[in-house]
Amino acid sequence: MSNTEIRDEPSTGERKRRSDGERSRNAILREAGRLATVEGITGLSISRLAEAVGMSKSGLFAHFGSKQELQIATIDAARDVFAAQVIDPALAAPSGIERARQLVENFLRYVEGGLYPGGCFFASVAAEMAMRPGPVRDGAVQVLDEFAGHLETAVRQAQAEGAVDPAEDPEQLAFEIDAYLSLANAQFALSQDSAPLDRARGAVDDRIKAAAPAA
Amino acid sequence: MSNTEIRDEPSTGERKRRSDGERSRNAILREAGRLATVEGITGLSISRLAEAVGMSKSGLFAHFGSKQELQIATIDAARDVFAAQVIDPALAAPSGIERARQLVENFLRYVEGGLYPGGCFFASVAAEMAMRPGPVRDGAVQVLDEFAGHLETAVRQAQAEGAVDPAEDPEQLAFEIDAYLSLANAQFALSQDSAPLDRARGAVDDRIKAAAPAA
Repeated sequence: MSNTEIRDEPSTGERKRRSDGERSRNAILREAGRLATVEGITGLSISRLAEAVGMSKSGLFAHFGSKQELQIATIDAARDVFAAQVIDPALAAPSGIERARQLVENFLRYVEGGLYPGGCFFASVAAEMAMRPGPVRDGAVQVLDEFAGHLETAVRQAQAEGAVDPAEDPEQLAFEIDAYLSLANAQFALSQDSAPLDRARGAVDDRIKAAAPAA
Repeated sequence: MSNTEIRDEPSTGERKRRSDGERSRNAILREAGRLATVEGITGLSISRLAEAVGMSKSGLFAHFGSKQELQIATIDAARDVFAAQVIDPALAAPSGIERARQLVENFLRYVEGGLYPGGCFFASVAAEMAMRPGPVRDGAVQVLDEFAGHLETAVRQAQAEGAVDPAEDPEQLAFEIDAYLSLANAQFALSQDSAPLDRARGAVDDRIKAAAPAA
């Protein structure tokens, strides 16, 4: 075994345990995110999660310390999922219009994928916590705001690239696209039927066509 | 005092008490609806409501009997408010296009009016209960579905009256209008700022213009 390989692999029992701990922590937080969209993040306590994942409460306390720490860790983990499934691949697209289309399509696939049975994790938590200020609410709202911001930036880029009419208000256009996604997500969560997701796809296609520069 | 006046007024102690009871029940259910959009309808128990309205638990049990009866009575009362503020005045409008516009405007005023701090009562309850089957969830979803149905019917009437292009898919157009309202409501609940409501107004205006028959 070369020195390089030794540096790349866990070389001690302690590092091995930490790596198992990371995997276990991620699996626990995936289940926590799932539970939050089904039963509400308010109900996401250490004892409820312990029951759901079949671990002891004391084991979970060692991971998270308190209910609010658990809720915030759940949001952070869901944000990583959202970045990996929705945002990051879209930002790699080669043009503004393509970036906007991929933000839409990735979002709809993330909803349809069923990782969170209650639909978009952040829409669910933001709706539940709208009137309950604090870091849980703020964490969810921030991700929704960032998504809207990415959409608006992509529209501005598309305008600069000549794919969207300069007369369009980019914030308004981003709002309208986001609106189709928002209702599609809410209806999918209620019906578990992909028809509203296809309605949103059609609405976005038509809206982007209508926003093309006059010939 | 004429006989007519006597017939119009409560004439016995029993009728007087019943009338007071109705007023009291309505006031209690208004507060219950408000609480449901702030703290969640799952948290709406008889003891929580007793605390909020300053009544004894036994007094509220006499009105509602159980937590689920209270939740359903709260939904029924909110449905009456929604009919009176949003649906009924719109259905009285003289044309399909005017009916669609009034459904939109009445909905936005109902949200902005602040009767429910967490925005549309039914959007809030449906989001919270999406994955929790039962009469509470179904009651909220039914009102949302009826609203979407009224929008679609108004669009079909507008098509029949020549105000909307016959080539438009009425269900799709109703979905898009409903989407602007859905996101506006969600953003208003989070920001308590009316800017998203105006975005929705602008989006609906533009969409209805785009749906006009080709000249």
